[in-house]
Amino acid sequence: MTRFVLAAGTTATAWIDGLSAVDADPDLLSHAPSADAELIEYGHLVRAPAVPTSPTPAAVTRAVREQVGFETLVVDAGLAEPTGAPTVDVGANPGRDVREADPVPTAPGAWVAARDLGRALSDDELVIGETIPGGTATALGVCRALGVDCEEPRSSGNSEEPRSSGNSEEPRSSGNSEEPRSSGNSEEPRSPDDGEAAVPISSSHPENTLALKRAVVDAAFEASDVDPGEAAYRPKLAVRFLGDPVLAVVAGLAAGALESGTEVVLGGGTRMLAVVALLRHAGVAAPLTVATTTYVADDATPSPAADALDCDLVVTDPGFEGRDDALARYAAGEATAGAGMGGALLLAERAGALGRVADGTLEVVERLTESHGP
Amino acid sequence: MTRFVLAAGTTATAWIDGLSAVDADPDLLSHAPSADAELIEYGHLVRAPAVPTSPTPAAVTRAVREQVGFETLVVDAGLAEPTGAPTVDVGANPGRDVREADPVPTAPGAWVAARDLGRALSDDELVIGETIPGGTATALGVCRALGVDCEEPRSSGNSEEPRSSGNSEEPRSSGNSEEPRSSGNSEEPRSPDDGEAAVPISSSHPENTLALKRAVVDAAFEASDVDPGEAAYRPKLAVRFLGDPVLAVVAGLAAGALESGTEVVLGGGTRMLAVVALLRHAGVAAPLTVATTTYVADDATPSPAADALDCDLVVTDPGFEGRDDALARYAAGEATAGAGMGGALLLAERAGALGRVADGTLEVVERLTESHGP
Repeated sequence: MTRFVLAAGTTATAWIDGLSAVDADPDLLSHAPSADAELIEYGHLVRAPAVPTSPTPAAVTRAVREQVGFETLVVDAGLAEPTGAPTVDVGANPGRDVREADPVPTAPGAWVAARDLGRALSDDELVIGETIPGGTATALGVCRALGVDCEEPRSSGNSEEPRSSGNSEEPRSSGNSEEPRSSGNSEEPRSPDDGEAAVPISSSHPENTLALKRAVVDAAFEASDVDPGEAAYRPKLAVRFLGDPVLAVVAGLAAGALESGTEVVLGGGTRMLAVVALLRHAGVAAPLTVATTTYVADDATPSPAADALDCDLVVTDPGFEGRDDALARYAAGEATAGAGMGGALLLAERAGALGRVADGTLEVVERLTESHGP
Repeated sequence: MTRFVLAAGTTATAWIDGLSAVDADPDLLSHAPSADAELIEYGHLVRAPAVPTSPTPAAVTRAVREQVGFETLVVDAGLAEPTGAPTVDVGANPGRDVREADPVPTAPGAWVAARDLGRALSDDELVIGETIPGGTATALGVCRALGVDCEEPRSSGNSEEPRSSGNSEEPRSSGNSEEPRSSGNSEEPRSPDDGEAAVPISSSHPENTLALKRAVVDAAFEASDVDPGEAAYRPKLAVRFLGDPVLAVVAGLAAGALESGTEVVLGGGTRMLAVVALLRHAGVAAPLTVATTTYVADDATPSPAADALDCDLVVTDPGFEGRDDALARYAAGEATAGAGMGGALLLAERAGALGRVADGTLEVVERLTESHGP
């Protein structure tokens, strides 16, 4: 059986002015992951006051669920506000601002508890999604702490920092993203690539705020005892001092699931490549698939990064282009990933239901708008 | 849509020697509701060390779920041990021993939060089940606090206490359990009957321990400021001083659901009649159905009590009689109700799947035994 797991949490990094992807009321920002969880679970809000972003990728995930009927599980990866969705506790607290000295002290414990959970679920496959406002900055921080290159490929200027290279001593495996998914019998250990290709850090905000994110990560390194590249092969350290609780939980869930023979699909954009980097640096050699959307893939071309981390990249097109309704804003790049949208779309494609996702999403969005305003 | 909700919690009343229904390791007793929740959610254990009772009614509920595929929601109604099942928090803490002065201080708050949740779910129908070791003693206490007669009809001796009568001042509605379920347009307010028929307190333990339960409830009244009958029309008071957190959560969920036009089926035995008593004393006049099994109905003939409380009683036979396998112990009265078994069986009957429940339950039980021992 395939189970869809949503890791939902928060980081106070999101409150930094101008950083967050969300253009709505900042008071609602901390409710966003709680709202996403409710939307996916029930198709409407239960305790959350509103969905802070319109469009929200969670509406796509819900629409797919209504078509395909997959089982869901929400893991509390540091929620700051109540949710009416049922959640499993892994001991994660909301992340503090990464510019503090020890922003995510619960990360190592949550990683371990999530790993135990992922191992015990014993499903055939987990499709893992995540939701956290402000999460691209922490993903950038984690990649730099690991020594994985994470500059935006198409960004210009501000590249004064040298690209730090991973200090891998293992032989590099060759990227095999052109090949069909390997059966898991690969003899060759998979190791993080040493910086040949970048993990592109993009954002779901129309105006990419890479310079600000870089400055935030610089401040985070200054506040912590970790230098760029120093957390290589110590992924829990990277996520504790530069990351957020959601990255720890997703990595833990994936690691545990893979240990028990469960296949893992990470549904999302560039943050999921940071999770792959964490897993490779944790010594996880099993095959990994990142399922994303054309919007992410077109925007930031993560394919070289996926090759470098030896993971398969599956890109699905939700078919929202050319619409003149509420879905146009997805195609305009305002909700490119997150809330497991990429993973859900892969499930829709497998079930032959991809063609019905656009209308289904519109229905979910209209239902929400009717009951909670635009 | 029909959603199955499990309220899972604990009361330290269960630790009183000889009281609890569970014949297994007392150290495992507090894990029982967590295990039941996992079994229904996943079909196997995730964090709970073992299922403390064999047979457990949760195996039947899970078997029905595997046949029928209903959505589930577990509400944390005072769990004392971790569960790997996702849960919604309503602020319920584990109940203390009812012989303490204020055993369930979180009951009124949990009732209100559960009511908000039940109202917000907006489903067509909720089938509510519950799991709590030691819960028949607290159900007895609540009934006596409300002034609802709760002696076991067939019990002999030890009836020295006079049957307290409810101090209802409203006109009595006539029991209508012979009629088909009313459509909800009834003009007549439904009110608790004043003691004409007893709410029978039975137990899933082979040896019914009514005398001990009575003594525990007597001690509970002595420890609290509430006298028998004094909490009539003040149901939150009854459940706080004589009850347990699960009764509060089930009553709150049902009250909220009914307010929003959701139909409610209470799946269980005599404890669910105590919930009906709480709801009637809370002024809830809407139609209520208690779905139980032949084992409860044969054992304690709750039908007159259901009439008195003006609720419909639906009895389903899981068809375990005459089997020589692990299911024989269900038919022998060791797992007559609980974990929503009665409600799940009603869903199976509606779906035409009742005939497959026995084999399905055996499969669930065997799967459990293989992985966690008998």
